[in-house]
Amino acid sequence: MKTEPGGTPLKVVSWAGNSLTILDQTRLPQQEIYIQTTDYRDVITAIKELKVRGAPAIGVAAGYAAALGALKIKAATLNVFFKEFDKVLEEIVSSRPTARNLFWAVERMRCVSCDGDNVATIKERLVNEAVAIQAKETESSTQMSVHGAALIPDNAVILTHCNTGVLATAALYGTALGVILRAAENGKNIRVIATETRPLLQGARLTTWEALRADIPVTLITDSMAGHFLSRGLVTCVIVGADRIAANGDTANKIGTYSLAVLAKENKTPFYVAAPYSTVDLSLATGKEIPIEERNSKEVTHIQGVAIAPEGCPAFNPAFDVTPHRYISAIITEKGVIRKPYGKGLKTLRQA
Amino acid sequence: MKTEPGGTPLKVVSWAGNSLTILDQTRLPQQEIYIQTTDYRDVITAIKELKVRGAPAIGVAAGYAAALGALKIKAATLNVFFKEFDKVLEEIVSSRPTARNLFWAVERMRCVSCDGDNVATIKERLVNEAVAIQAKETESSTQMSVHGAALIPDNAVILTHCNTGVLATAALYGTALGVILRAAENGKNIRVIATETRPLLQGARLTTWEALRADIPVTLITDSMAGHFLSRGLVTCVIVGADRIAANGDTANKIGTYSLAVLAKENKTPFYVAAPYSTVDLSLATGKEIPIEERNSKEVTHIQGVAIAPEGCPAFNPAFDVTPHRYISAIITEKGVIRKPYGKGLKTLRQA
Repeated sequence: MKTEPGGTPLKVVSWAGNSLTILDQTRLPQQEIYIQTTDYRDVITAIKELKVRGAPAIGVAAGYAAALGALKIKAATLNVFFKEFDKVLEEIVSSRPTARNLFWAVERMRCVSCDGDNVATIKERLVNEAVAIQAKETESSTQMSVHGAALIPDNAVILTHCNTGVLATAALYGTALGVILRAAENGKNIRVIATETRPLLQGARLTTWEALRADIPVTLITDSMAGHFLSRGLVTCVIVGADRIAANGDTANKIGTYSLAVLAKENKTPFYVAAPYSTVDLSLATGKEIPIEERNSKEVTHIQGVAIAPEGCPAFNPAFDVTPHRYISAIITEKGVIRKPYGKGLKTLRQA
Repeated sequence: MKTEPGGTPLKVVSWAGNSLTILDQTRLPQQEIYIQTTDYRDVITAIKELKVRGAPAIGVAAGYAAALGALKIKAATLNVFFKEFDKVLEEIVSSRPTARNLFWAVERMRCVSCDGDNVATIKERLVNEAVAIQAKETESSTQMSVHGAALIPDNAVILTHCNTGVLATAALYGTALGVILRAAENGKNIRVIATETRPLLQGARLTTWEALRADIPVTLITDSMAGHFLSRGLVTCVIVGADRIAANGDTANKIGTYSLAVLAKENKTPFYVAAPYSTVDLSLATGKEIPIEERNSKEVTHIQGVAIAPEGCPAFNPAFDVTPHRYISAIITEKGVIRKPYGKGLKTLRQA
């Protein structure tokens, strides 16, 4: 669907000939640079450094990292292979702590690896499974966009945070931005307000870029401006993605999401979360249990390498925050739209 | 009070020998560069470009700009002088639209100019009045810091937005940060959380710098993180300054203030506004009437000259927002602390 000017689809994460190609999102929008690798450690580095980011895309990349790791293992026996493969999976799991999809993908890879009677077969199955994970996320994002677009009225002004499009999912649509892209594709007149999303500016760099590519009118704001536009009644709804959703609907997402949710509620504006079901973690009762990644403070004290604070100034850098479920108007998944009570809805959809 | 390592007080705006020296705040904290001028148009440029910023400091600079403008007028008769001086004042008034203090200072200068029987005397009176405006703001900021510090408990973690210290007032303390400086000076154990304050990063560049100079522990966060820390109960109170306060207490302040106020209320955290009474505009019934400056969108799409968005990406850039009075726990002025109902309190204090 989303195509480059020349008509080529945007290749965020792509697999060919047992080699993985990753679009380096830290260089966008100025440069479109691809990393090609057969080394799973390069993929882990790409995840850690946010060259590939967005919960679903991290899951997809993690699947391929596991496949690459498996392919490199020189083991004749299953025992030796499993020992090595476990180490690979542990390294992948340690790359980032918050996004559920990473663990979900690794678990899928681990399950598949258990089923096979020789190393060569298992390696083949793992490659197929990684490809299947991406296919599944692609299908999910497409379905999610259909369900979500139905909630969007014509002439909507949609405020969104961070980047949740093709870049964040390595799929054909996205999560929150996927809903927006689909609503526009369905002929609705949509305008987007994109928060820049400090510290790493995924909104300013990536969401605007994706919206402009799709010919959707987009206007950039700083994160601090969202409340102003909400309070003036200029926003129809807010849609964001998710990194992990607890069993009660509490949602961890990019830092700043909680603030948008509170501001939306205060101004009686619908606040939607769009995420594939692979983001849901029924093992956590509430959002309080979701681990929040604290990243390097230099991401706050510096912007694209330029110091913006006095030397040595301390900074906090939680990468995510948790939005309690009571602020969320609906959770949009590929399995359907869930409304309160989320505990029941999320549990029911597990079987769907 | 605030001194440089060498013991020299911080000279934000200083007058000597009919010449004005302005610390260029756009270059801080990396460089401490001063602009010296006898041309009022340089002062207007400095105001427009935020080389001098903060509502009280803008008022102080505007007073000196009027004095410099008057000194340059070559007029033998009062009629010619007044005609020229009116033009000077109009230019000053047009420099920035939101901060009340600018208009307040210009009005004071206009009033003084009416009283005098020859041009030389009026010029002298104008110079004296500009100096008096700065003395008044200095006294106000000192008094305000005393009143405000009384509200701050020991071991407080104070979240503040933008810069509201010596730099913002050209005084000895400041408004919101002045309260913090004074509380620390009074021996209270204070920690500051400073929001970076996009787009122009006054928090990251200036508030951290002032706090570090005063040996007050400060930690920088992005604007989007404030809600996270408030929701986790890690903030004792929020204090901000003001650019204009309407008769009912609605307060225009740096963009992002409204969001902080809503988030503070949602998390049952006191939200204080500190401002000299010169910021109060009783001619406006509510905050809806306060003009909000829309600045160049490049301030959003670029950070310190570096593009962070795709070329040509549109951006909104309102420099201020309005916080309805219902979110404000108290307004701290040099005349005392005002609580609800603000309409009555603000009116009463006019005479104080």
